[in-house]
Amino acid sequence: MKNNTSRIADFSQLVENLKETGNKKNVAIVWAEDSHTLEAVEMAYEAGFANPILVCSQQTAEKYEGKYEILLADSPQDASEKAVALVREGRADALMKGFVNTDVLLRAILDKEKGILPKGSVLTHITAAKLPTYPKLLFFTDPAVIPHPTQEQRMAQIRYVTDFCHAFHIEQPKISLIHCSEKPDGKHFPYTEGYLELKKMAADGAFGNCIVDGPLDLKTSCSAEALADKKIDSPIEGEADAVIFPDIEAGNVFYKTITLFAAAETAAVLQGTQVPVVLASRGDTVTSKFYSMALATIISKSNK
Amino acid sequence: MKNNTSRIADFSQLVENLKETGNKKNVAIVWAEDSHTLEAVEMAYEAGFANPILVCSQQTAEKYEGKYEILLADSPQDASEKAVALVREGRADALMKGFVNTDVLLRAILDKEKGILPKGSVLTHITAAKLPTYPKLLFFTDPAVIPHPTQEQRMAQIRYVTDFCHAFHIEQPKISLIHCSEKPDGKHFPYTEGYLELKKMAADGAFGNCIVDGPLDLKTSCSAEALADKKIDSPIEGEADAVIFPDIEAGNVFYKTITLFAAAETAAVLQGTQVPVVLASRGDTVTSKFYSMALATIISKSNK
Repeated sequence: MKNNTSRIADFSQLVENLKETGNKKNVAIVWAEDSHTLEAVEMAYEAGFANPILVCSQQTAEKYEGKYEILLADSPQDASEKAVALVREGRADALMKGFVNTDVLLRAILDKEKGILPKGSVLTHITAAKLPTYPKLLFFTDPAVIPHPTQEQRMAQIRYVTDFCHAFHIEQPKISLIHCSEKPDGKHFPYTEGYLELKKMAADGAFGNCIVDGPLDLKTSCSAEALADKKIDSPIEGEADAVIFPDIEAGNVFYKTITLFAAAETAAVLQGTQVPVVLASRGDTVTSKFYSMALATIISKSNK
Repeated sequence: MKNNTSRIADFSQLVENLKETGNKKNVAIVWAEDSHTLEAVEMAYEAGFANPILVCSQQTAEKYEGKYEILLADSPQDASEKAVALVREGRADALMKGFVNTDVLLRAILDKEKGILPKGSVLTHITAAKLPTYPKLLFFTDPAVIPHPTQEQRMAQIRYVTDFCHAFHIEQPKISLIHCSEKPDGKHFPYTEGYLELKKMAADGAFGNCIVDGPLDLKTSCSAEALADKKIDSPIEGEADAVIFPDIEAGNVFYKTITLFAAAETAAVLQGTQVPVVLASRGDTVTSKFYSMALATIISKSNK
C-alpha cells in the first residue's frame, strides 16, 4: 500500500491508486444512450472504481439489465432530473453526461429547488492534462464555464484546484496565475492586480497548503529554463502543478491546443456541485471519458 | 522557377523561395551585441536573402568590418534611433531587434516625429507557426501587442494576415475568428457580434481574396473531424491558414503552448510599421530568429 501516498503523476497511476485503495463510487450516467459513453462506463466498471447507475431508455435497459443498476427515463430532460434526484437522495456520488445536451443537464443541476448547486457555491470546470512533454499532470481552470472570473470565483478556483492536487498526493501544489506578462497591469488587465492579493492570501494560508504566484506567463510557469532566461524569481520554479487562466478564452485555447496539437490526454469535471459532474463532449475520446470518471471518483467527497 | 508560385508550406520552403526568386533585403540589426542574434544574422547572410547592416558598438564593428555594413552606435537607445533613421532614409527594408529592450526599440519606432509608424496605422504582431501535427503553416495574431483589439484593429489584423498568406502564395486564405464557442454571445463577448460583421465584409471583398469565418473555436478551425463532430458548416473546413485571437491573453497562451508543448517552429514580425520589425526575444531560438528574418524579407514591400 505504499504507493497510496506517493504523488499520482499520470492517469494510469490514478487508476492504479483507485484499485489499490478500493475507492469505488456510484456514478449516475445521464441518458446513457451513446456507444462512446457506454464504452467508457464499461472500462470504469471493469477497472472496479465505478458502480454505474444507467439512467436510460427501455431499449438500453434491456441490454444492461442484471449488469448495472438501471433507472428508466423517457427523455434526456427526464434523465437529467432523475439523475440529479439520485444525488440529492445520496444514491449517486458523481454524475456523468451521456447523450444529452449540456444545457439540458445544466438546467437540472442548477434548478434552485431541485438542483445540486449549493447556494453561493461557485460552479467551475477543472481539467487534468497529461502532456507527453511535461513530467507530471497539469491541472487547469477554466476552459468552459466562467467567462470572466471575478476575484471571488478565482478564489474558489484556487481552492478546488488545491483540493484536486491534495487528492493526487501533491502535498504543496504550485499554482500559477496566468497572464501574458510577468508585470501586473491594472489598466488593461485589472485581474493582474487581483493576482497580487491572491498571492498574499495564499501565503497567509487562506487556501491551505499550496504555493500561489503570478502574474506569470504559461512558459515561465511550466519551464524552469524560460524562467531563468527571463531572470525571474518565482516559487513556482517553472514546475506548475496547476494554472489558473485569466478567462474562458485563454483557457479554451489552451484546452483545444493541447488536445489538438500536443497529444494531451485529459480528464475533466465540474466542481461546485454537491458531487463532481463529468461533462464530456461528443468530441472527447472514450479514454478521456474513462479518465474523467476516475477523476470524479477520486475527488468525490460524497459518502465519506 | 515553377516552385515560385506554389504554396509555401513550411520554413524550409520559405528560405528556398527567397533563394530562387533572388529576394534580398537590407536588414538593420539594432544593437547587434548578442551571439544568438549574430548567429541568426550569419545564417540569413549565408542563405543570401539578407544584407545585414549592423548598428553596433565599436567592439562588434571591429569583428565584422568588411563582411557586413556597419553603423556605429553608443548605446541601445542610440542604436534604436539610428536604425529607425535608416528606414526613413530608405536604406533598411526591415529591422531586427538585437540586445536591446523591447520598450527602448519601440519608443524609437513609435516616435511621432522621427518614428516609422505611419499616422493611423495599426501596430500588431503576426506569427507564422509550423506545427509537426498540422500540414501547413498557421498564421496568427496577436500574442504580444494589442491587449483587446477594437473592431478597426481586427480589420487591420485580417488585412495583414491576408497579405502574408498571399506572399506565401496562398491564393484564398481561410481565416478563422476565434472564440470558445461557435455561438456569438454579445452579452459576455461583444466582439463575437463584431465577428459577424467582419465575415460579411470579407464576403463583400473588403479584405481582398480571402475567406473569413467565425466565431469558431480553435479545434473546429483546425480539425475537419472536430467540425464534422459538432455538425457545423464552415467555409474554413477545419483547415485554417490563419487564426485571429480575441485578445492578447488567448494569443499569448497559444504562442507559449505550441512552442513549449507542441514542438512548434515559429517566426514573427511586427506589422503596421513602414517596414517589418523582428522583435525576437531572448528566449527564442536562433532558428526562430533566422526564420523571422526570412519572414521579414518576404513581406517587406520596401524598395519594390
